[in-house]
Amino acid sequence: MSLPQPDLPEPAHPAVDSMLSRKFGREVANYFSGSPLNRVSFLRPDHAFLSQALKHPDASFLLFNKLEPLLKSPTEIAYAKFADIQPIIGDDPYAKSEEDVIKEYNSATYVPQLIFLGIDERKEGFAYKDRYKGQPYFAVDVSPKGLVTEAAEALIKSCQAKGLEFSKGRMHMSLPAQEAAIYAEARHLLDWNARNPYCAACGYQTLSINAGFKRTCPPKDVAPSVQNSERPPCATRTGVSNLCFPRTDPTVIMAVVSADGQRMLLGRQKRWPKYWYSTLAGFLEPAESVEEAVRREVWEESGIYLGRVVIHSTQPWPYPANLMIGAIGQAIPGGEEINLGHDAELEDAKWFTADEVREALQVGTSGLGEDAGPGYKEGGLRVPPKTAIANQLMEAVVAGFASGAPMI
Amino acid sequence: MSLPQPDLPEPAHPAVDSMLSRKFGREVANYFSGSPLNRVSFLRPDHAFLSQALKHPDASFLLFNKLEPLLKSPTEIAYAKFADIQPIIGDDPYAKSEEDVIKEYNSATYVPQLIFLGIDERKEGFAYKDRYKGQPYFAVDVSPKGLVTEAAEALIKSCQAKGLEFSKGRMHMSLPAQEAAIYAEARHLLDWNARNPYCAACGYQTLSINAGFKRTCPPKDVAPSVQNSERPPCATRTGVSNLCFPRTDPTVIMAVVSADGQRMLLGRQKRWPKYWYSTLAGFLEPAESVEEAVRREVWEESGIYLGRVVIHSTQPWPYPANLMIGAIGQAIPGGEEINLGHDAELEDAKWFTADEVREALQVGTSGLGEDAGPGYKEGGLRVPPKTAIANQLMEAVVAGFASGAPMI
Repeated sequence: MSLPQPDLPEPAHPAVDSMLSRKFGREVANYFSGSPLNRVSFLRPDHAFLSQALKHPDASFLLFNKLEPLLKSPTEIAYAKFADIQPIIGDDPYAKSEEDVIKEYNSATYVPQLIFLGIDERKEGFAYKDRYKGQPYFAVDVSPKGLVTEAAEALIKSCQAKGLEFSKGRMHMSLPAQEAAIYAEARHLLDWNARNPYCAACGYQTLSINAGFKRTCPPKDVAPSVQNSERPPCATRTGVSNLCFPRTDPTVIMAVVSADGQRMLLGRQKRWPKYWYSTLAGFLEPAESVEEAVRREVWEESGIYLGRVVIHSTQPWPYPANLMIGAIGQAIPGGEEINLGHDAELEDAKWFTADEVREALQVGTSGLGEDAGPGYKEGGLRVPPKTAIANQLMEAVVAGFASGAPMI
Repeated sequence: MSLPQPDLPEPAHPAVDSMLSRKFGREVANYFSGSPLNRVSFLRPDHAFLSQALKHPDASFLLFNKLEPLLKSPTEIAYAKFADIQPIIGDDPYAKSEEDVIKEYNSATYVPQLIFLGIDERKEGFAYKDRYKGQPYFAVDVSPKGLVTEAAEALIKSCQAKGLEFSKGRMHMSLPAQEAAIYAEARHLLDWNARNPYCAACGYQTLSINAGFKRTCPPKDVAPSVQNSERPPCATRTGVSNLCFPRTDPTVIMAVVSADGQRMLLGRQKRWPKYWYSTLAGFLEPAESVEEAVRREVWEESGIYLGRVVIHSTQPWPYPANLMIGAIGQAIPGGEEINLGHDAELEDAKWFTADEVREALQVGTSGLGEDAGPGYKEGGLRVPPKTAIANQLMEAVVAGFASGAPMI
């Protein structure tokens, strides 16, 4: 049995037609979610597991050069095999226990970042302790650096000779949903590791452990250039510190409806194409509930006062480390006057009718850099594509999210 | 007009009785949310605003000594006035622009952490540009340290002489809800600043700016002991880096119901009192949606396979920096067998009937360190108190969250 996926073809599971789903409709699985991998996170400290998974002939490796993924085409990831990356990561980076790896920490050595992403339980082959079965997936940073420069450059060249490419640009929104989710996990973790080489508590360099899901501040550093191999005490070594674990920044994104439910508020930034609007969004702040963050952001950016806020769905967003929490909020009567003068983030904000939004969802969607579709008429509203949670929130409101009847 | 509060007395706002609220019931405002303060976050870089708010006679200061808040009693915060803390923070820490403060950065100087929390718009008095009006709230770290040691010790003594106390222990769950929300904001930010004195990108010391909501890695350090006042380049200085902003860790917490909706899964940790169970919970991982994280955590900890997941409400949790995202998930038929052998976090997990949970919510709630209430009979289920989102999730399921009819 594998972890259920909301995007499995119908009929997914009988329970999906149960009380919750009848009331809420099918779960919206936003782009970058819906990974087919079971992360078996509890096996990450187990170097014997990692070592076997790594060297299994089925193991698949997603390669990144400076955070750019190796692709066959804009719609297909190019996976490598263990033999391809062995010159870069060595015969077995998981040969030793974590304890020993920490003891032997040497800040002068460059260790290419390796991430264990999970196992795809739909594919047989690899098995651990006869319980955890599936195709293992890893991500590897093959950027030419330190002692691996030569090997990495050779690998990159051989990939290019096969017609593969490390895809430039930040967004990879043309991958199929499940591939996009695997890529998102890899990118988020490679970025977090690359972005945090030093300990924020003590300023010393840290070391990646737990298959790429943890960084630790080793008590010793045996690098020859270091005068005293014993490091001073560090707060992250006593108890559990969040500094050692990957960071994910919660953001709120919200479809705002008028008090009478007839209109939807959308805003636009200056750098966006003409006629393009989207839902408002912003970072959740310390000690805010999501509902409070939604009310604050909407007021700060548009001057609108919201009453009730309902959470709709969520979307991982690996640029670099966000969790987008999608909500629908309703203005209070008398609180609908737009004021862009508080926080000057938006160039414009406007109330749109249901018909305007409905038409835009049909003919005016596209990526930010793309042209609107063939049905679009100049001057009409343009909105984000289906891969954006903003689009899903607009769709939900127009379709009458959770109400049985249209909201607007 | 001030930002709406979900816990205002009835009738709150007419919109609260509109379509969304009729379908969803009133919004659940969990403990530590529901702050009465408008953070006016966009004014934080404005040192003229901060300076006026700081020195206004209405300004109220929440004092912390090593993260312990100054209280009058377990149910009341003791606020100080500007004159009380002037010996510690100086005449006006906001006299200079942020630009100048960064230019003059000196890593050898200890600057007590000061946080601008927001303005309470219900109280008249202070006004900025005739638009932002209300009583200003700040938090200050008065721990005896560096050059302020003497002044801080004197302040602490004078507080104690008045019968006030820096409250030991981590949890302050007996404060009224709105005070708890103010305390939570202060604690989260003081902790984040204290926990992150160094830059994770380059290892150099950082400086608090934006009224305590940002840390920056200054390009120069004029401390006399520093050989070269120009620092090397740092990645956080080009573009916007999340490392400069407070961290909030999203966690998921979920009431799990059986496929037929008749039972609820609860688990217990070894260190909890006998008969005490709660909902399962865990950290969201990189590039997971909340719905995926809920399914993963429930499977890892209990072996149960979930289908549909619905988000219920959220709770800020300032120990040290969590956002608890509360959800309700439903097991798929055939996926209800408990297996504690994957991730060994729980001592036990068990299916309970609606009646068992209902009774526990009536007679078996209490804080972890407290005795169960008078109606509790030894051997009955014990569960967390109303201040915990776990309790609210159980209540929601028993009351038939969003279904019109009981879920279990």
